[in-house]
Amino acid sequence: MTETDKTPPPLTAILETALYVDDLVTARQFYSDVLRLEVLTEVEGRHIFYRLGQGMLLLFDPIATVEGPAAPPAPQVPPHGATGPGHVCFAVARDDLPHWRAALVREGVRIEAEVDWPNGAKSLYFRDPAGNSLEMAEPGLWFDTP
Amino acid sequence: MTETDKTPPPLTAILETALYVDDLVTARQFYSDVLRLEVLTEVEGRHIFYRLGQGMLLLFDPIATVEGPAAPPAPQVPPHGATGPGHVCFAVARDDLPHWRAALVREGVRIEAEVDWPNGAKSLYFRDPAGNSLEMAEPGLWFDTP
Repeated sequence: MTETDKTPPPLTAILETALYVDDLVTARQFYSDVLRLEVLTEVEGRHIFYRLGQGMLLLFDPIATVEGPAAPPAPQVPPHGATGPGHVCFAVARDDLPHWRAALVREGVRIEAEVDWPNGAKSLYFRDPAGNSLEMAEPGLWFDTP
Repeated sequence: MTETDKTPPPLTAILETALYVDDLVTARQFYSDVLRLEVLTEVEGRHIFYRLGQGMLLLFDPIATVEGPAAPPAPQVPPHGATGPGHVCFAVARDDLPHWRAALVREGVRIEAEVDWPNGAKSLYFRDPAGNSLEMAEPGLWFDTP
């Protein structure tokens, strides 16, 4: 049996989550100033990459990414790029949800919906400036957490 | 100072990552059988939700989600739904990447690109049946891991 016959272990984590935005400057203000995310790297007109714990949130201008990579030595990353509102949910501890709700309202963000789930978990929904549907929810919405 | 004046703690994790697919039946075969993800819940014609560790990968048919929720008591989740190829990267340990590569090839998945990053990390890229750009990369692409 060669090494590559080995069944790989299950996938257990998402490393990168992507959203697409039509205006990276406006998006940067929102994600950096309102959501207080930490920019790890950015390329003007193409992307802004944020770190969240052990994962990354990637914001792309799809106009810049649907064309595919520049000639080498640029990394040969395949093209992608969606239009229309995407969705991301941030994990927020139950006790912190009211504080995040208040902080968003103070920043002029409209709370679009609040959902009390059958299992007792809570979610709140709002939009980024590009129209993506963002959510904050306690992880208990899906599973018990340590 | 009322409780809601408290600055909420930083966001540290993404709970839900969404992709959009044009055919949930085909997508289910791919994500369940090829990527071996565990279905947590699904609604025929609308979505399939997979659990990955402490996060969720949500596959939606955007035709079913751009319209917004059904009347209560259906949960009042705001509408969303993108078209065009999105992007997700799964975290895979460096030593497991060759095994995942071989497993994908055995399943007939075309490896679209492989990138050796300047910091020594590796990524491989392929597509789901809907055309979304999927990646497997070691977390060291972005940061040291414990």
